[in-house]
Amino acid sequence: MKMSHYFLPTLKEVPSEAQLVSHRLMLRAGMIAQECAGIYHWLPLGLRVLQKVEGIIRKGLDDAGFHELLMPTLQPAELWEESGRYEAYGKEMLRITDRHDRRLIYGPTAEEAITDIVRRFIKSYRELPQVLYQFQWKFRDEIRPRFGVMRGREFYMKDAYSFDIDRESAEKTYGRVIQAYMEIFKNLGLKAIPVRADTGPIGGDLSHEFQVLAETGESDIYYDGDFDDFTFRGGEEDLNRIKKLYAMADDMHDSALCPVPEDRLKHKKGIEVGHIFYFGTKYSLPMKTTVTNEQGKPILVESGSYGIGVSRVVAALIETNHDEFGIKWPEQVAPFKIGLINLKVGDDQSDRVCAEIYERFRNAGVEILYDDRPESVGVKFSTMDLIGLPYQIIVGPRGLKEGQIEVKDRRSSEKILCSVEDLYQRFLSHA
Amino acid sequence: MKMSHYFLPTLKEVPSEAQLVSHRLMLRAGMIAQECAGIYHWLPLGLRVLQKVEGIIRKGLDDAGFHELLMPTLQPAELWEESGRYEAYGKEMLRITDRHDRRLIYGPTAEEAITDIVRRFIKSYRELPQVLYQFQWKFRDEIRPRFGVMRGREFYMKDAYSFDIDRESAEKTYGRVIQAYMEIFKNLGLKAIPVRADTGPIGGDLSHEFQVLAETGESDIYYDGDFDDFTFRGGEEDLNRIKKLYAMADDMHDSALCPVPEDRLKHKKGIEVGHIFYFGTKYSLPMKTTVTNEQGKPILVESGSYGIGVSRVVAALIETNHDEFGIKWPEQVAPFKIGLINLKVGDDQSDRVCAEIYERFRNAGVEILYDDRPESVGVKFSTMDLIGLPYQIIVGPRGLKEGQIEVKDRRSSEKILCSVEDLYQRFLSHA
Repeated sequence: MKMSHYFLPTLKEVPSEAQLVSHRLMLRAGMIAQECAGIYHWLPLGLRVLQKVEGIIRKGLDDAGFHELLMPTLQPAELWEESGRYEAYGKEMLRITDRHDRRLIYGPTAEEAITDIVRRFIKSYRELPQVLYQFQWKFRDEIRPRFGVMRGREFYMKDAYSFDIDRESAEKTYGRVIQAYMEIFKNLGLKAIPVRADTGPIGGDLSHEFQVLAETGESDIYYDGDFDDFTFRGGEEDLNRIKKLYAMADDMHDSALCPVPEDRLKHKKGIEVGHIFYFGTKYSLPMKTTVTNEQGKPILVESGSYGIGVSRVVAALIETNHDEFGIKWPEQVAPFKIGLINLKVGDDQSDRVCAEIYERFRNAGVEILYDDRPESVGVKFSTMDLIGLPYQIIVGPRGLKEGQIEVKDRRSSEKILCSVEDLYQRFLSHA
Repeated sequence: MKMSHYFLPTLKEVPSEAQLVSHRLMLRAGMIAQECAGIYHWLPLGLRVLQKVEGIIRKGLDDAGFHELLMPTLQPAELWEESGRYEAYGKEMLRITDRHDRRLIYGPTAEEAITDIVRRFIKSYRELPQVLYQFQWKFRDEIRPRFGVMRGREFYMKDAYSFDIDRESAEKTYGRVIQAYMEIFKNLGLKAIPVRADTGPIGGDLSHEFQVLAETGESDIYYDGDFDDFTFRGGEEDLNRIKKLYAMADDMHDSALCPVPEDRLKHKKGIEVGHIFYFGTKYSLPMKTTVTNEQGKPILVESGSYGIGVSRVVAALIETNHDEFGIKWPEQVAPFKIGLINLKVGDDQSDRVCAEIYERFRNAGVEILYDDRPESVGVKFSTMDLIGLPYQIIVGPRGLKEGQIEVKDRRSSEKILCSVEDLYQRFLSHA
């Protein structure tokens, strides 16, 4: 992508309304723009990150054997009356009336909608367990939306729903989701801790939040310090270890009952990036959702629901990957892998070398953003640091005289000088 | 994907509410399910097609140099009051009030939202031309929703918006979009004719609909029969030829003025899959959206908007690709390329050969759906014909005794017998 033709409206000033660093950086890097309170546009650079995050989550869920579908953003009020949540959900739920005076709601979550699908189409225990998921925009009418996409009103969520024939099987499925989530957050470049949590308006009797440790987090968590040294590698053993390690949301933590010795207990702030629930028959009972068991008798299905805040993950990634100059993207979620800086647009040799590098990388399928604008060197460096692409390739007449270009690693700040051939060797040899 | 674990709720009965063949087949093939009037769930098989269609459209737009962003589903009423459309749009627009009594609308289109972005972030003629697009759910409160996703209320749309400094440049951009659309529809496997059309509530003085010829279409079009023999290959010359060939929506056609000789003029039904508009300063004027020109003076930007009904394209593909047994997907949009039928689940050799074929194809990255269910041969054949995957691989004990399996081409109905090695040769040699 050539920056001269791209739509990348970076801002020089720090927007005054943004308190949180991710909010500030997303606005300044031209990733998002506010439409109205708590509702944001995803501009091209931001959308690329959102799509990468989505792709990593999707792969993790598909690998776990879950199946993607897509439910509408709007749902009929009747379904929520059946479950008893139409009144219970409160003012966070956006209530709508259509031209025929039928009541709709903008889905804040989709337990009712998916339960309705399952009761219509799944008839037998043989079709279970089943985990269905979607990526869809949700709306929660936060009374005070803030922190940009971290606590927006219209937000992008991955929500999954499980259906099993009994509690034992449902708990196994719950474990499969924990395992998939650990894998997904690791692949996203986030260290997320599953923390025992209250079930809130979703309901049920078992719940975990996935918390990313960050000083700017809104959640308070208490956890076993052993978590800090623990790396999830997958498998039954690691899963059991996770289940045993103590981690509690503050409203669930009781220091009198906590089994972790005081010197190992940590109390930190976290950003909630996922939340999972096992709620048994909370929805299948009022919505009469049964399958026949092996004996041909109808039994209520046992369910759970499993969310990841996709748009919030983008903000959490920035909270945990930035410095005073801007964002430092982990490679797998970076909007482009490489930023190419032409220090002197108009200089024949610089233009020629940059054009060649740009084409070679593009042809090799490496995502590269080429700053070919007639801007000052200072603007180019600060823009590239701000948007945080993992590698910067810096080309100018002075270096080229020595046959050299510069490669800067944005995360480590390490810089090396090398020839163009070395550059291809380093980045394209496997391609 | 193994069918025994998949979520593919096919229906034996023809749903009585569905008149249109695509609606019937999408329900019967377990692609969609109605949530409420005009609002549909996309079940796993249907979503795969929707995503492939989206991918082909995205590639066509990216190749044309357009940039993707994502605007929210909800928009503030104030923007629509600025343009004058808040009152004008009528009852098709879903009007919403949030908890603070602020008025929102569920976007039926996004000219106002994108114009607001451009006026905030684009300042100079040097940043134009710019074409920005998104894939986003839209809502139009049709008074009588029908025909499934062909005329739903919540529907998936690709909408693009162009910004230029003058009419001449804007018309060039309009041509670039026509060219990209012709390419996209060709790649989707649809023959779409750009037809001169009325501009309706979007406004402006130049508009084309892209119509796919189909007896079940809702549009009436008159066009030069030479279109039938015309294959778009891209390039200026083909674009000019398209612009010259006569094609008019019925409300624009006047037989007294039509330049096409009667024996070449055709009158047919079409499905509108795209609609494009050039509307100049219709939005930039009331919304005061200017850029500075070369002389540093502010000038109003010239705009157009360009839609493709993504969910409707799926229905149009079925209208033009089916027979009495079900869907016949073109390969590039098929939910899976191959359907593997095990005629006798439980027979050692059949199970073993099927397992091997399944693994080999999966490892080669070929999308394969394996019917491993303990169902009758009749059910398996009719299910596979119904869901319409391009190739069926049929494995059973009788054939295996002769060292043979059967490969059926769903589109041509051609069947061949071959060895498993021949099968790999045919489908995997390039992989």
